[in-house]
Amino acid sequence: MKAEIIAIGTELLLGQIVNTNAQYLSQQLNAIGADVYYHTVVGDNPGRINAAFQTAAARSDLIVVTGGLGPTQDDITKEVLAEYTGRKLLMHEPTLESIAEYYAVRGLTMTDNNARQAMILSEADVLPNDNGMAVGVALTHEGKHWLLLPGPPREMKVMFERYAVPWIQSRNGSAEALYSITLKFSGIGESALEQELIDLIDGQTDPTIAPYAKDGEVAVRLSTKAPSQEKAEAKLQPTIEAIAGRVGRYLYAERDIPLEQAVVEWLQQTGQTVAAAESCTGGLVGQLLTSIPGSSQVYAGGVISYSARAKHEQLGVSEETIAKHGTISSETAEEMALGARRAFHTDWAVAVTGVAGPGPSEGKSPGTVFIAVAGEAGVCSYALRLAGDREMIRLRAAKSVLYRLWQHLKEGAAGAGD
Amino acid sequence: MKAEIIAIGTELLLGQIVNTNAQYLSQQLNAIGADVYYHTVVGDNPGRINAAFQTAAARSDLIVVTGGLGPTQDDITKEVLAEYTGRKLLMHEPTLESIAEYYAVRGLTMTDNNARQAMILSEADVLPNDNGMAVGVALTHEGKHWLLLPGPPREMKVMFERYAVPWIQSRNGSAEALYSITLKFSGIGESALEQELIDLIDGQTDPTIAPYAKDGEVAVRLSTKAPSQEKAEAKLQPTIEAIAGRVGRYLYAERDIPLEQAVVEWLQQTGQTVAAAESCTGGLVGQLLTSIPGSSQVYAGGVISYSARAKHEQLGVSEETIAKHGTISSETAEEMALGARRAFHTDWAVAVTGVAGPGPSEGKSPGTVFIAVAGEAGVCSYALRLAGDREMIRLRAAKSVLYRLWQHLKEGAAGAGD
Repeated sequence: MKAEIIAIGTELLLGQIVNTNAQYLSQQLNAIGADVYYHTVVGDNPGRINAAFQTAAARSDLIVVTGGLGPTQDDITKEVLAEYTGRKLLMHEPTLESIAEYYAVRGLTMTDNNARQAMILSEADVLPNDNGMAVGVALTHEGKHWLLLPGPPREMKVMFERYAVPWIQSRNGSAEALYSITLKFSGIGESALEQELIDLIDGQTDPTIAPYAKDGEVAVRLSTKAPSQEKAEAKLQPTIEAIAGRVGRYLYAERDIPLEQAVVEWLQQTGQTVAAAESCTGGLVGQLLTSIPGSSQVYAGGVISYSARAKHEQLGVSEETIAKHGTISSETAEEMALGARRAFHTDWAVAVTGVAGPGPSEGKSPGTVFIAVAGEAGVCSYALRLAGDREMIRLRAAKSVLYRLWQHLKEGAAGAGD
Repeated sequence: MKAEIIAIGTELLLGQIVNTNAQYLSQQLNAIGADVYYHTVVGDNPGRINAAFQTAAARSDLIVVTGGLGPTQDDITKEVLAEYTGRKLLMHEPTLESIAEYYAVRGLTMTDNNARQAMILSEADVLPNDNGMAVGVALTHEGKHWLLLPGPPREMKVMFERYAVPWIQSRNGSAEALYSITLKFSGIGESALEQELIDLIDGQTDPTIAPYAKDGEVAVRLSTKAPSQEKAEAKLQPTIEAIAGRVGRYLYAERDIPLEQAVVEWLQQTGQTVAAAESCTGGLVGQLLTSIPGSSQVYAGGVISYSARAKHEQLGVSEETIAKHGTISSETAEEMALGARRAFHTDWAVAVTGVAGPGPSEGKSPGTVFIAVAGEAGVCSYALRLAGDREMIRLRAAKSVLYRLWQHLKEGAAGAGD
């Protein structure tokens, strides 16, 4: 079943809000076996809504429309669909009564325009609105299925999950749902990863293999249609193993979690702790770690040593090191990590010092970053050359030091008991 | 000029990411006098992309396309537009050289697929990518204007603002542009602010007045069409004054800058410094401050004291205070702020301690947060009750302490010389 999502609302075209409804509905529709091929956004204009309906009917089997069901003059979705399908607009009495009661209970007068929310189309099914007043509509016209849902997400999601999903499923036969597994990687760039997997990607049929970048990390999405989760996993397993065989050292999770979550979980499971010493990242490493609920078990804290003096006084970086190598150096990164580990009494500590830009610092260009990981066995530092603007360099620096920490955690686990 | 935005990417149709590019471009296009009438999202499929191009060309004058310019096999936007317009694909040598240099400088091999990002179409203008590798394209075909931009927002926005806007404006004649001024507020919620301005909002004609919430702050966007910036400002001034007269004490900027930028600029202009002591915000205050270029002049650093022990050892919070009031208290917040001010030798210090959730801590429920501001004159603490999930509570806590700091900075300026 080919699905299309049409969001109606001029505020979307003005860029006042972002189209989260389309994202939500895409996830939901894919999960019940309806393939989403198009999103469309159109404004509160009858001519353009009608044209969008025509375009959708020509290319899609299921058209899910959100928005334009409210009480104001701009809300015309039902009228336009009635005109497009040649059906009548009728008043749905039970909905009208509950709208009237809502006002009566509060001692308010129901304004006429509110009654418009109780309209439905002839020969259509009613989709109740459990979180609002505007009733939804589902109908089939010339073989195409149409659903009209409210715009406000709180109302739309409940209506969709409770009433629209069963309605769609009863018309979709025994569709196979699309199952995806997302493999997450760090420490390798998107194009280098694709290059390692190029023959798999070029030769893909089922499952499909799609690399993409997200939030400073790289992901590979594997998708297949199957009648059940178990069968899907069986179909995906050989491909996962082929990929892991090649790039497993960068693979930190077989589900779509951020790197910091993998790090926190590993520390939790092994009962270890970590602290962070940050300069150019300005607190981002701490913020990423503490965004994970339960991180207080493993993250003791950190120091943002933005000035040379703070690096010396808060972390014990020696004045000699700063004088000889500068604050942006592997020597300083190592002393920052050792200092944080000492100060916070943790098993591990990470450190980042570098130039985020836009200008150079201490004669070093933006993207010059040194990171270090200190543990019981000692301390390692790494020199990075990162691309992008200030925020991207900071994000990549934070993810890089977490990647190195994760590598050390894995090596530590591998070494134990050998 | 009727504009349409086409976002290309299967990850959008699967609902893995939300279409923020369309929102951004809508705002930008409206601001330069191009009316956006449609958004379309289509997947990485040549046939459907071609069909979307045909639909767009029939109904729009300016088609802005994002996505599909990268190095992987899925990235086919340029190929499809070349086929649609009958133009050739050519290699843009300068871009190819800079991609090759990026890899050479790092001692890495440029993979073949990376060269694809340097392709352009014949008889087209090149839009440089200052934040990435894939070069953009602008061309006119049978009277319709086409722009191809990268998908990643950091690359797309810079390319659009620096190169696409002038290109569009040179082809858009003397359109009356839409001018907007954004007033930024902190320390007041969106609905409370709207209530203070309700008669202005209800009675608006020109300029339009639109309150909205963004990133833990509240904004009011005033918009009007005018032939020039000066005339627009004259039209907007009375409304700005009416609003400032009512809610001026929450108004921190008359341009769309984040609160942390206003704070950093004030500190820069007055030659003052600040440090931060953070617990539940985990580094977010430091990260917000250091996201502003030049913050190293004013932000000395901070401590993320995630454990009670760290609060004591790093910031000097007394064991007696922790035993008597707990780590989530105004007393602890004050000692954290005083400790940070001392440790980093700054004029000011801010502190945050609280419960971000999802669970309670020390018997206090999520959203219970204490913040403090320490300066030469002493220290003030504030008790907050914040709503939302973990990330929203952390963001609101960080913004709240920066708001209080900003208030103290203003008061300091007001007091001097009276």
